[in-house]
Amino acid sequence: MSLRGKLPLLGLLLALVFVFASVALGAAEWNDGSPEKRLRECQQGCERHERQEERGDCQRRCLEDYRREKEERGGHGRKYGERQRGEEETNPHHKGREEEEKESKEQQQGKPYVFEDQHFTTKLRTEHGRVQVLQKFTERSEILRGIENYRVAILEADPQTFIVPNHLDAETILYVAKGKGTVSMACPDKRESFNLKLGDVMRIPAGTTVYLINRSNNKKLVIVKLLQPVSTPGHFEAFFGPGGEDPESYYRAFSTELLEAALNTRKDKIQKVLGQQRRGVIIKASEEQIRAMSHQKEGGVWPFGGESKGPVNLFSKRAEQANQYGQLYEVDPSECRELKELDLGVGFANITEGSMMGPFYNSRATKIAIVTKGQGYFEMACPHLSSSEFGGGKESQHEHQGKTGPRYQKVRAQLKRGMVYVVPAGHPIITVASNDQNLEIVCFDINAKNNKKFFLAGKTNVMNQLESEAKELGFGVPAREVDEVFRSQNEDLFFKGPRQQQHEGRADA
Amino acid sequence: MSLRGKLPLLGLLLALVFVFASVALGAAEWNDGSPEKRLRECQQGCERHERQEERGDCQRRCLEDYRREKEERGGHGRKYGERQRGEEETNPHHKGREEEEKESKEQQQGKPYVFEDQHFTTKLRTEHGRVQVLQKFTERSEILRGIENYRVAILEADPQTFIVPNHLDAETILYVAKGKGTVSMACPDKRESFNLKLGDVMRIPAGTTVYLINRSNNKKLVIVKLLQPVSTPGHFEAFFGPGGEDPESYYRAFSTELLEAALNTRKDKIQKVLGQQRRGVIIKASEEQIRAMSHQKEGGVWPFGGESKGPVNLFSKRAEQANQYGQLYEVDPSECRELKELDLGVGFANITEGSMMGPFYNSRATKIAIVTKGQGYFEMACPHLSSSEFGGGKESQHEHQGKTGPRYQKVRAQLKRGMVYVVPAGHPIITVASNDQNLEIVCFDINAKNNKKFFLAGKTNVMNQLESEAKELGFGVPAREVDEVFRSQNEDLFFKGPRQQQHEGRADA
Amino acid sequence: MSLRGKLPLLGLLLALVFVFASVALGAAEWNDGSPEKRLRECQQGCERHERQEERGDCQRRCLEDYRREKEERGGHGRKYGERQRGEEETNPHHKGREEEEKESKEQQQGKPYVFEDQHFTTKLRTEHGRVQVLQKFTERSEILRGIENYRVAILEADPQTFIVPNHLDAETILYVAKGKGTVSMACPDKRESFNLKLGDVMRIPAGTTVYLINRSNNKKLVIVKLLQPVSTPGHFEAFFGPGGEDPESYYRAFSTELLEAALNTRKDKIQKVLGQQRRGVIIKASEEQIRAMSHQKEGGVWPFGGESKGPVNLFSKRAEQANQYGQLYEVDPSECRELKELDLGVGFANITEGSMMGPFYNSRATKIAIVTKGQGYFEMACPHLSSSEFGGGKESQHEHQGKTGPRYQKVRAQLKRGMVYVVPAGHPIITVASNDQNLEIVCFDINAKNNKKFFLAGKTNVMNQLESEAKELGFGVPAREVDEVFRSQNEDLFFKGPRQQQHEGRADA
Repeated sequence: MSLRGKLPLLGLLLALVFVFASVALGAAEWNDGSPEKRLRECQQGCERHERQEERGDCQRRCLEDYRREKEERGGHGRKYGERQRGEEETNPHHKGREEEEKESKEQQQGKPYVFEDQHFTTKLRTEHGRVQVLQKFTERSEILRGIENYRVAILEADPQTFIVPNHLDAETILYVAKGKGTVSMACPDKRESFNLKLGDVMRIPAGTTVYLINRSNNKKLVIVKLLQPVSTPGHFEAFFGPGGEDPESYYRAFSTELLEAALNTRKDKIQKVLGQQRRGVIIKASEEQIRAMSHQKEGGVWPFGGESKGPVNLFSKRAEQANQYGQLYEVDPSECRELKELDLGVGFANITEGSMMGPFYNSRATKIAIVTKGQGYFEMACPHLSSSEFGGGKESQHEHQGKTGPRYQKVRAQLKRGMVYVVPAGHPIITVASNDQNLEIVCFDINAKNNKKFFLAGKTNVMNQLESEAKELGFGVPAREVDEVFRSQNEDLFFKGPRQQQHEGRADA
Repeated sequence: MSLRGKLPLLGLLLALVFVFASVALGAAEWNDGSPEKRLRECQQGCERHERQEERGDCQRRCLEDYRREKEERGGHGRKYGERQRGEEETNPHHKGREEEEKESKEQQQGKPYVFEDQHFTTKLRTEHGRVQVLQKFTERSEILRGIENYRVAILEADPQTFIVPNHLDAETILYVAKGKGTVSMACPDKRESFNLKLGDVMRIPAGTTVYLINRSNNKKLVIVKLLQPVSTPGHFEAFFGPGGEDPESYYRAFSTELLEAALNTRKDKIQKVLGQQRRGVIIKASEEQIRAMSHQKEGGVWPFGGESKGPVNLFSKRAEQANQYGQLYEVDPSECRELKELDLGVGFANITEGSMMGPFYNSRATKIAIVTKGQGYFEMACPHLSSSEFGGGKESQHEHQGKTGPRYQKVRAQLKRGMVYVVPAGHPIITVASNDQNLEIVCFDINAKNNKKFFLAGKTNVMNQLESEAKELGFGVPAREVDEVFRSQNEDLFFKGPRQQQHEGRADA
Repeated sequence: MSLRGKLPLLGLLLALVFVFASVALGAAEWNDGSPEKRLRECQQGCERHERQEERGDCQRRCLEDYRREKEERGGHGRKYGERQRGEEETNPHHKGREEEEKESKEQQQGKPYVFEDQHFTTKLRTEHGRVQVLQKFTERSEILRGIENYRVAILEADPQTFIVPNHLDAETILYVAKGKGTVSMACPDKRESFNLKLGDVMRIPAGTTVYLINRSNNKKLVIVKLLQPVSTPGHFEAFFGPGGEDPESYYRAFSTELLEAALNTRKDKIQKVLGQQRRGVIIKASEEQIRAMSHQKEGGVWPFGGESKGPVNLFSKRAEQANQYGQLYEVDPSECRELKELDLGVGFANITEGSMMGPFYNSRATKIAIVTKGQGYFEMACPHLSSSEFGGGKESQHEHQGKTGPRYQKVRAQLKRGMVYVVPAGHPIITVASNDQNLEIVCFDINAKNNKKFFLAGKTNVMNQLESEAKELGFGVPAREVDEVFRSQNEDLFFKGPRQQQHEGRADA
């Protein structure tokens, strides 16, 4: 751990290494250690975009990367060396304040269940798009160990772009959050291509060589992915065959003499083919190229338990729950072989502005949720946080003396587009949309087999299943009073939200 | 780790926090940091019991908690800070003696495979019962990593009591060790209730809202549970919906304005219903309430691979093995879908007084055994303990030079009611009942699919399956002599035990 | 970690303990702490062999053990205390040189994917054979965590020898790499015996009491095993019932009075039977004994998805791929219930001298390969090594700035008989045979279900599945030029190798 004291020096060294590496790799946009210079150059690159919308997106991405880099330099970057503490510090400004205040702040930020922009890493980037990957869940907290082998990634690609063919050492479930594209999977014996549209869900089996286009000429393509690594738990990498210098082709890792023999071709031809690509992973395609790759099958509902390998569209099914306050669409493992093998479900919730979803809990599934549109907040009841086994030194005392049962910490966090949050199995949660916009959320359910939703309010809420004696004994009041509280709501799952002052308004009772 | 030096101070602080917390929670019985005062008050609480048997049980629990608390204060509480050593110190008196003596003592105590009263934590307690949870197996030793995601809990409830509805983020297999109860499972669409009696085995799926009554008017209900967490490996929590201050209701974690909106009810009504309960998790019910909840279906043998979700009674089946020296009853995954999904088996062994079970080993299953009645001891042959990879620094030398094969450490431990022990797959074991009482053991078998018992003595012992050449070569004596030793016993599994002086008597040969 | 400073003293102590232990165990060949003396005595033991070939094998094993012991004493033995660094130092001579040079050297040695003689431990040894066990994969590197629960072992036994009956707390898949034997499995209700020949693959279920003979009168028996522990992840032990002092019988772990009672036999008889064996685990058998145990069923192709539990012979099937440059034989989980339960595949590649296999990658399976004959080398493209999450402190900087996509580290290592290497899912690899000898490799495929091989050169290589637009965009050159490179090879998987100077010859382009 003496390493930590040497960090500034190490940083300097790494910056130097980085400069050399950048030059060596021909990475024109990254030729200086200063974040300001990088920002300037990144922004200049954006000027090459003809369309204004694309220029704006590009500028936004430059700024995000700049801000993140600055944060890291400001001490935040040390977090990776502190992982052994179980939970990292996400907001450096808390340091020095009182412990208790800090903890309450943390839960208000949704920690450790909520992930924001700064928890993503830009893994790939060109001027036409990027792939962002969420940190490993266990980097955040040991409490998320149960979903260690799942990763979240978000792909954004400009109109009329091509994502270079590659394969991952991970299973992929993708959800199309915006735009329309075409995905092609090259298998040993054939190629299959499918058009993708908003709401499509599709599995890319691990190791499949796959490529994508954004076939819209004016709209971004945004794809949310859940990845399940097959080789090293929690880690995955992309393998690019087509490529050159950027993306590097994996063919270039082999000695030329071996490639010559394997391909039965002369060295100069090989070097030419493997030496041209320098435009990166996400590149502009011509209208003709887009057109040639665009005519493909569309996704639909998988019939009869699903033999098809193509996309299924969430919205082509009847909603599981729907009223004026919101709708829930789902595909679960029992409906689809591709998801069954991974024991995953995928859902989409649209909460009407000013409305709310829940309270409810999932019996078995842990939910990884990504906000794709709108704003709002959630509240979740969390016994693990206030309890024993993740609290460090306080454990023994606490656990031995706290014999009156678990207590529930409220985790509350604001939600906005791009945020990720985790709802562990069994945890009651309420999600609220802001008053001016619908809140849209896509969910991946881990351990979805045999999962059931237990509603805690509304017409079919589980309290209504209790015998009157159980109500009396459980709540300590006459059953009639319990019924008055739990039988007054006639909707299910989605309800009219709390009044205007919801955000920071009334204090908790 | 400088934390350790500050433990006394921390202890003081926590004690203070505890006092405030106790007062705040209205936990009348816990209003002082002194164990003696707590004991006194606990015992006073017991006087409220009318029935003498209940008073006795209550007093015993007070004393156990008192003793445990004293132990913790006496330095034992530090064990949680020492977990990184792989194996904790269980008996502080050993410190300062020679290493070797200590190790031999440890194995005599059955370490790390045996768990006693001090390895349990009282997770919930009222004057009418309690729930005790065994420590995580990996807290004891890394050698138990294979069963990390299983936990053991024991529920004791006084006659005519009610356990408040709750759900766990864990699968539960329960075994009724004493008394008779009724279990009710509230699902989203219905409620199912089953009467429980001695020997019943039942699965409660993760997340099911469940409640229990002890419907006897004079007998305690004792239920042994195996839990398999579904969210965070090795960790589970109870979620109480009905409740108030004690148990806390998870509804109370939500802002009032959200509850008002979700339940469509006024704040004052909600606060009243969620504010009354202060009696804890296990509470006395009236005779009428018990009667109203008691008329339910009984468990039986699950027919045809078991579609029913109710209890199966171990004793309604024919015993797997039975003679005058003991009986073994079992349900395995092939007989029952509910167990198959969890790859678990459940068994019950009754060893007649003065008799013994084994030697035998399980081919695949690791057994978690709980003594439900009687006394005795076991001996187990353990190569992992005497071998390499868990021994720390000695490893390389040992492993490279010990080329003559593994050696077997004898683990020997006294058994009495309430003790838990682990028998890993492949490990030969003999269990002996005391001369004055039958020894009863309930077993949960992890990885039960395709498991086979290999008998090492008795009529069908596996040595008799060897060819005579294999016997000669293996033992290095004529096959006839091998047969004389291995063909003299006509019983199977259960045998007449060793002579009177078994306990501490004759030295090992 | 202050332990490390005390290592020399500890070593001395252990040497002393070892001397006493050796004497106590009657291990005649190991009665001195000096490696030289041990070597001398080991070699003297070899003189007892009548046949010259056996004498030679015995001498070779003595020398290997001597060399390894010397290495350990020379500081190498410390590696076990350094495991927490994630990757151990395998070549002590590197210390003190520049980091970068070291890293490049390491990858040339195939680190962390390649294992040589020094990564094996001789777990059992007699003058007639030995069992060597490869270190745990996670001891080498955290990057191999995905295969943590697999172990590799190699058994060598002289002609006409017997391996004493034992069971493991692990599933075993064995492959017969040399010679012919007979395996017998003693189950609770029966014994099954099968003759084994070159190419046989067979599963021994965990916990089965099993014994083997080498029934050849002039050839060694060599068996390669993949083990999957069922009790403690990554750890297994052998349990010997027949035996005495060496191998120790597990019966000896029990008190005599318990054995007397269980076996219903007098103490003196038991002690005689359990006290004679001192010859170790692998012992010479007489011609009559061998003959009596040799007449058994032979392995074949498992018909119809495989109900038989006996061996299947890889070579009795049609080769998956075959041309003049090599052949590939495989059994995969879909063909065989025994392998399906373990999700394993087994393959055998024979690369003709001067030829090569690949480039290709496996979509899901991670391959554990053991060289059984010949020499050569491999090259593999490894993104995980050059990337973020296993590199320690450099991580955050690297990951946040390397936005141009992954880079591929070339791992290159010489191969020779007895070496083990790991090919993770998705990683492109080329394997080349030397010019003077075929290279034979047996492979165990972990996660074999739904695995597909993706060829990266040859007639059906996956680049040929891309649309011409995808080729153009991906490589940044006209599709025609891509085709010229990827359509010039007419063979599949096995190709004519690179020219003579392959080994250390031409520099990488």
